Amino acid sequence: MKNKSITSRDIDFAAWYTDVVKAAKLASYSNVKGCIVIEPNGYEIWEKMQKTLDKMFKETGHKNICMPMLIPENLMRKEGELINGFAPEVAWVTTGGQKELEERMCIRPTSETLFSDYYSSIVKSYRDLPIKYNQWCNVLRWEKETRPFLRSREFLWQEGHTIHETQKEAEEETYNMLNVYRRFFEEYLAIPVITGRKTEKEKFAGAEYTLTIEALMYNGIALQSGTSHYFGQKFSKAYDISFLDRNNEKSYVYQTSWGVSTRMIGGLIMVHSDDNGLVLPPKIAPKQVVLVPIGKDSTVFELCNKYRDELLNAGITSYVDDTEKSPGFKFAEAEVNGIPVRIEIGERDLEQHKITFVRRDTREKIVEDININVAEYTKKLLDKIQENLYNIALQRQKQLTYECKNLDEVEKIMNTKPGFIKAMWCGDENCELKMKEIKGTKSRCILENDKHIDDKCIVCGRPAKHLVVWGIQY
Amino acid sequence: MKNKSITSRDIDFAAWYTDVVKAAKLASYSNVKGCIVIEPNGYEIWEKMQKTLDKMFKETGHKNICMPMLIPENLMRKEGELINGFAPEVAWVTTGGQKELEERMCIRPTSETLFSDYYSSIVKSYRDLPIKYNQWCNVLRWEKETRPFLRSREFLWQEGHTIHETQKEAEEETYNMLNVYRRFFEEYLAIPVITGRKTEKEKFAGAEYTLTIEALMYNGIALQSGTSHYFGQKFSKAYDISFLDRNNEKSYVYQTSWGVSTRMIGGLIMVHSDDNGLVLPPKIAPKQVVLVPIGKDSTVFELCNKYRDELLNAGITSYVDDTEKSPGFKFAEAEVNGIPVRIEIGERDLEQHKITFVRRDTREKIVEDININVAEYTKKLLDKIQENLYNIALQRQKQLTYECKNLDEVEKIMNTKPGFIKAMWCGDENCELKMKEIKGTKSRCILENDKHIDDKCIVCGRPAKHLVVWGIQY
Repeated sequence: MKNKSITSRDIDFAAWYTDVVKAAKLASYSNVKGCIVIEPNGYEIWEKMQKTLDKMFKETGHKNICMPMLIPENLMRKEGELINGFAPEVAWVTTGGQKELEERMCIRPTSETLFSDYYSSIVKSYRDLPIKYNQWCNVLRWEKETRPFLRSREFLWQEGHTIHETQKEAEEETYNMLNVYRRFFEEYLAIPVITGRKTEKEKFAGAEYTLTIEALMYNGIALQSGTSHYFGQKFSKAYDISFLDRNNEKSYVYQTSWGVSTRMIGGLIMVHSDDNGLVLPPKIAPKQVVLVPIGKDSTVFELCNKYRDELLNAGITSYVDDTEKSPGFKFAEAEVNGIPVRIEIGERDLEQHKITFVRRDTREKIVEDININVAEYTKKLLDKIQENLYNIALQRQKQLTYECKNLDEVEKIMNTKPGFIKAMWCGDENCELKMKEIKGTKSRCILENDKHIDDKCIVCGRPAKHLVVWGIQY
Repeated sequence: MKNKSITSRDIDFAAWYTDVVKAAKLASYSNVKGCIVIEPNGYEIWEKMQKTLDKMFKETGHKNICMPMLIPENLMRKEGELINGFAPEVAWVTTGGQKELEERMCIRPTSETLFSDYYSSIVKSYRDLPIKYNQWCNVLRWEKETRPFLRSREFLWQEGHTIHETQKEAEEETYNMLNVYRRFFEEYLAIPVITGRKTEKEKFAGAEYTLTIEALMYNGIALQSGTSHYFGQKFSKAYDISFLDRNNEKSYVYQTSWGVSTRMIGGLIMVHSDDNGLVLPPKIAPKQVVLVPIGKDSTVFELCNKYRDELLNAGITSYVDDTEKSPGFKFAEAEVNGIPVRIEIGERDLEQHKITFVRRDTREKIVEDININVAEYTKKLLDKIQENLYNIALQRQKQLTYECKNLDEVEKIMNTKPGFIKAMWCGDENCELKMKEIKGTKSRCILENDKHIDDKCIVCGRPAKHLVVWGIQY
């Protein structure tokens, strides 16, 4: 039985996506143009993501901090490339306290400038380094076209900003944080990612280079899911983040920044969910198990409560749906909300010593003897679901990754069943632009360690420098 | 030995306050006027406050949500009193994406308007009620004079917004949340508070009434520390938050909102800290215990690590300071940062079977046999410290609370040793204004359950209606 409020994923993917967001009550459009309201079901996913990542950041030596949300124009302009990159999409505050401001301020689109200004005031000696700070906050970019979670004017994210004594340390940090992101995507979100370096054209404004994790959605479209930037000394020279080095001479720090955002919720939906609504990998699901009592028998309710307590004690987040709704309604709600495991217990089941588990990923019903160890069984089932979701996503990514040696192949693929294209590139931006003419296919990243598949650029035929993954992007 | 970087609290309280903020590295001024950088030591206190309160909110049936940070002017203006109250202190965004906006938007100073607009779109029936949402976010108010944590243009807070079917339910919520705040202050922050209702003059713009918790600082100045507002149907009528009631007729919801902010960190400092820096109540201290090894003996280090693990296992946050600094430096640092308990272990102590505990609140050194159960002992010590800090604050509040029957008494007190004044009031705003002429003494709140101490208004001598607590405020 299909959820009638959700368009089929294979018929109209964009409509399916917004239907799932709405049906699972993750977010709704607000009357503030381009901004969404993240509703409780969506926000608790974000809280789980935050909690998990925050722990990973703290374990790797980072501390949280809170910077202002406004950036005075002069401060913003100190580093030229960044302001050029962001100028078209910032919002400016010009009036405060009923007076026109002498200097307008923008709402932060990202906080390199604020961190750099702050760091310049606190760093004196190499003994103060490294400094590895992160902040969880909202940012604003004046986007024209918006879509819940994937692109909205305001979004929530974390931005790590670190400064180091040496280039080596800063580059290591850039790669380490990319790996934290990769691990988070693979282990928790059950989303396989491709990692690599952005081309000059696609890198972050002001960065020496940008590393990225790229995920493939169900429909073969790519989602840039997290980035880690190496700045070298660009900002430290512009903002004078200098220190006395080990030789007692003035040096400039080497800097990084890295971020992931509520966009990850969009990725989660587009990789795992189906025509019945949201599907959440157990490790990121705010509620992992719902117990649904069927009938009015108090023994059934008591048993549900007992199992819930056993599950909670085993570290499995679970609750009993003891509302007045009908069992069918409860099943549908649990399904659309993506709760990984549903446990059904009815009066008749009691007589027959049965307990029913329903997997959200496969929608499979499993009937077990009521005397099994429910917590232990559920734990294993959740692990299986987590693994299965990852494997399906990985399988899909493999199927939709194509090695190409000429543009005709690319065109044919992008017109039928798009995905990741692996192809060689000479390094010339003109060839990137040529590729873009094929349905907007853009470079996702340069693969840094993979074996080259050809020695000629797929576009111009000149000697190739890099193996690049290409794709159509959100 | 006094910390030399900190002005004495009794000599210059304002200078002492900013010295403590700086010395404990809680926050620093930013180059964004009126805004601070909350540094890691300050932010982790906020995180602990958030975590504790968030649990209390969830336990009382609230869910988190995320609203936009911008409010279009028209939306802001729908309820007249609110915009009149906040108009002088909002910041307006007039340009976005390089274009002048057709309608300017303000950065939220508070979000009643956004929640009301959202609620009007999702509520249909009495079955949808109550809705009890909260958000953790930043807000902006264009203050002229600012002081770290106490008053800054941007600050972090939580704002709960709830809607209910009946007046009774909404009023209960208003009082319940006030009690959650009171409990948090007394149990966790070790700060006694006075609770009551704001006068018409002092209530929140747009509220039917405002409840408040008021705390008294070391210097006898009052800090409004948390408020809970009952709106009745003011917003629900202005924003059309209507529903079909049990008689199938159109009704308007009854509404509340309530909030506490990073201002609490300021209160924490001004109630408990001393001339040696920050003092944190154990229940809100991000790090409760520091272990300091003295000397280079590896047995000492191993023992410190062993105790740390035992403490961690007992749920006590603790760490070993194994940096290269001298023991004296480590002691001073632990002290200025307000870590409730310091454990010192040296080579000589090992020989003598001794372990030393140092309490941050009393600075007392306690030498114990090395074979005691360290975790158990520390747990008790932390409880004692928590209790002691609360008792000192309560004692001070009692000493500095005066019952007055004429203005001469008030004047004398406010000129020598200010505090809370309990005095009767007729209910006339002119009498409040008269009181304010005495060093800015303002009504803090109307005590709703206390016995009246006189039958005449302290200012005009006419029949008194309310027993009011007055004070000079931050």
